[in-house]
Amino acid sequence: MTTHVPAQPVTHPLAPSTSAPVLSPAGAKTARPDDSPPAPTHETGSVAAARVRSRELEDQIAQDPSAFRVLTGERPTGALHIGHYFGTVANRARLQQAGVELLLVLADYQVITDRDETGDLRGTVREILLDYQAAGIDPERTTIFTHSAVPALNQLVLPFLSLVSVAELERNPTVKDEVRAGGGRAMSGLMLTYPVHQAADILFCRANLVPVGQDQLPHLETTRTLARRFNHRFSPARPFFTEPDALLAPSPTILGHDGAKMSKSRGNSLLISATEDETAAFVRRCVTDADRHVTYDPERRPGVANLLTLASLCTGETPETVADEIGARGAGALKALVTEALVEYFRPVRARRTALTESTLDPLSLLERGNARANQIADSTLDDVRELMGTSYT
Amino acid sequence: MTTHVPAQPVTHPLAPSTSAPVLSPAGAKTARPDDSPPAPTHETGSVAAARVRSRELEDQIAQDPSAFRVLTGERPTGALHIGHYFGTVANRARLQQAGVELLLVLADYQVITDRDETGDLRGTVREILLDYQAAGIDPERTTIFTHSAVPALNQLVLPFLSLVSVAELERNPTVKDEVRAGGGRAMSGLMLTYPVHQAADILFCRANLVPVGQDQLPHLETTRTLARRFNHRFSPARPFFTEPDALLAPSPTILGHDGAKMSKSRGNSLLISATEDETAAFVRRCVTDADRHVTYDPERRPGVANLLTLASLCTGETPETVADEIGARGAGALKALVTEALVEYFRPVRARRTALTESTLDPLSLLERGNARANQIADSTLDDVRELMGTSYT
Repeated sequence: MTTHVPAQPVTHPLAPSTSAPVLSPAGAKTARPDDSPPAPTHETGSVAAARVRSRELEDQIAQDPSAFRVLTGERPTGALHIGHYFGTVANRARLQQAGVELLLVLADYQVITDRDETGDLRGTVREILLDYQAAGIDPERTTIFTHSAVPALNQLVLPFLSLVSVAELERNPTVKDEVRAGGGRAMSGLMLTYPVHQAADILFCRANLVPVGQDQLPHLETTRTLARRFNHRFSPARPFFTEPDALLAPSPTILGHDGAKMSKSRGNSLLISATEDETAAFVRRCVTDADRHVTYDPERRPGVANLLTLASLCTGETPETVADEIGARGAGALKALVTEALVEYFRPVRARRTALTESTLDPLSLLERGNARANQIADSTLDDVRELMGTSYT
Repeated sequence: MTTHVPAQPVTHPLAPSTSAPVLSPAGAKTARPDDSPPAPTHETGSVAAARVRSRELEDQIAQDPSAFRVLTGERPTGALHIGHYFGTVANRARLQQAGVELLLVLADYQVITDRDETGDLRGTVREILLDYQAAGIDPERTTIFTHSAVPALNQLVLPFLSLVSVAELERNPTVKDEVRAGGGRAMSGLMLTYPVHQAADILFCRANLVPVGQDQLPHLETTRTLARRFNHRFSPARPFFTEPDALLAPSPTILGHDGAKMSKSRGNSLLISATEDETAAFVRRCVTDADRHVTYDPERRPGVANLLTLASLCTGETPETVADEIGARGAGALKALVTEALVEYFRPVRARRTALTESTLDPLSLLERGNARANQIADSTLDDVRELMGTSYT
C-alpha cells in the first residue's frame, strides 16, 4: 500500500512546542508574559498588534477571569519535555490558577497527519496525563479530552469545509511548509484540512481565547474566518460563534542537548519527569563552545545562550545577569548552575509525578470526566448548529 | 462575504439521477435489470466487468438476500421526479421486496457542496419521505436517516482523510468536472473531500452492495480503496471493512419536457406526486419533431425516443414495439399513449401518497427510528475503529 502522508513532522498548531513565557510550576513564584523583554524590531505589524492585544487581554483576565474560556492542547506523540513545559504547559497552569476555564484537547487524530502508525497512544496519553497533573493542571478544574472521543466536535468539520475553498487551504502556512518539506511526497487529505479541524476544536466549545506562539497567528486566522462565514451565512441576525482572540506568548526557542530544537523524535530532549541524574546527564551533553567567557549571544553562541535561557526560566533572573555571574568561570560552571536550577525548579513537579505514579488510580480514568463534559458541550453546540442550518428534523 | 462553492449542481454519486432499470412500483409486475438489452459496444472493459459482476450479484440476491446490506441515498434538494423514480427509487423498492436490508441516507450536508443556502430542508425531506413510502419503501424495513444526525458516521471522515492524498482527491471525476464547470470559481473543501464522505456513508454500516449508474463506478472505487487501506494499516490480520460491490443498473436517460436531462432545478420535470392533469400537461409540453412516422432513434430523435422509453418503462414493452404500434399516427397518438401509461403506472403510487398526506402522522417522525438505528450502527463501528486505531482509552 502507498502511504499518503507528509514526510516531515509538524507541530500541533495549538501547541507551540518551545515558545516560553517566563513561568514557574504551580505553587512557585510566577511572572506574566508581558514582563518579558520588548519584542524584536523585525516583527510584522500584525504580530505587534497581537502583542498589544494580548497585553489588554492579560489585564482583562486579571480583572475577570470568568469571562474567558481557553481551548488549547497538543498531539499526543510522547511524554512532555521541558520545551513543552516552558512553551505551553506552565502557561496553562498559570491561566487555570488565575481562574480561567480551560479545555485541553489531546488531538489524537492529528497524530496520523504526518505518520502511518499511531503507536502506543494509550501509553503516551497516560504519560501526558501524569505530566499535566505534575505540572499543576487540575483535571477537576480543566476539561481534558481526546479528539477521537467527541463525534459531535468532529462533525462540525463538515459544515466548516463548505465555508473554505481548496485554494485557501493550500495557502495555509503549515500546508505550504508541508508541500515544501514533502519533497514530492503526497500530502494527505487530513493534512490539507487540518486548519478546519482546528477551527472545530476551538469553536465547538465557543472558546474566546487561544494561547499561541507568534508563528501560529495565521492558524487562528482560519478559525476566525470560519466563525465569521458561518455567522454570515447561517446566523446573520445574531453571531453564533465568537471569533476567538490569540493570547500571544514570548517565544524563546528551547534547544536540545545537540543544539537543535528540542524534540521528542530527535531524542535530544529532557523530559519533565526526568530524575536528578537524568537532568545532570542532559546538561552535561549540552553543546557549548570554546570561549571560556560566558556571554548571552543567541545569534553567535546558541548553545551557551540556551543554557542561560534555561537558568533564567528557572531562576527568574535575566540571561544576561546569569552570564555576568558566571563570567570567566566557563561552561563547566554554567552547566553546574543550570543543573542545580533545573533540579530545584522541577523538584515539586517530580514529587507530584512520583506520588501520582504510585497511586492505584489509572490516569486514563481522568478522561471519563473530561470526555463526558466535552461531549456535553459539543452535542449542545451541534444541536444549535443543526437548528441554524435547518438540518434539525425532529 | 465571498462564497466558496462550485458553480454547477452535482448529482449525489449515490443517486444516479435518471438511470433506469425497467422496474415497476411495489405490487406491480417487476423486471430485473439483466432483462435489459445488451450493453452498447462502446463501453469500457471495467464497465463490462461490472456488468458481469452485477448479474452474478443479482443471482446471489435471488438465492440469499439476507447476505446483503445496501447503502444508497440522495441529496434532499427537492421532491422526487420520475427520473429519480425510474433511476433509483423503484430499484430500491425492488431490492427491499427481495429481502435485502437497505439503508437510505438523506445526505443533507451534501446540499451545501454546491449552493450557499440549504433552503427549506425540513419541507424537502418531508416530501421525499412521502415519495419514498408512496413508491414502496417501507420505513419499518428500510433504515432511512439524515446525514447530519449521525455524528459517529461523520467522524469516520477524519481517519479516512489520512488515507487519501490531495492529488488523488483532485483526480476524482466529480471533482475534475467541478474544476472544469466552475469557470474559475473556487471549489470548497467539502466538494474536494466529497468521495471521502461518501466512503464514510457506505462503510459506517459495512454495506457490501451499492446500486450505481455506470458513470458512478469511479466513486465506489474510492470507497473500496479506503476500505483496503484502512484494513492494511489498522487491521492487517483480519480485514475490518468489506469492500462493497457495485450493483450496476442500465442507464437510459430520462429527459424533461424541454429535451434536456430531467432536473428539479431546470423546472422540466414531472414529480412522482403529479396529478393526472399535471401528467397530461407535462407530456403535452414534451418536445418531439416534424417526422410523423414514429421510430425509436435516441441519437437523432431524442424527444420521441424519450417518450417511447417512458412508455416502455410503464408498460414493459420495448420502445421499438411501442414505436411500431404507433407507426404513422404521429406524436399526438404517442403522447396520448404515454400520458395514459404514466397515469396508470403511477396510480397506486399516487393513491398511497394521497393517503399518507391525509394521515395525521408527520412524515418527519419516521426519521426518529431511522436515525436511532443509524446511530446505533455508527457508534458500534466507530468503537471498533477506535479500538483498531488505538484511540480507545477507557
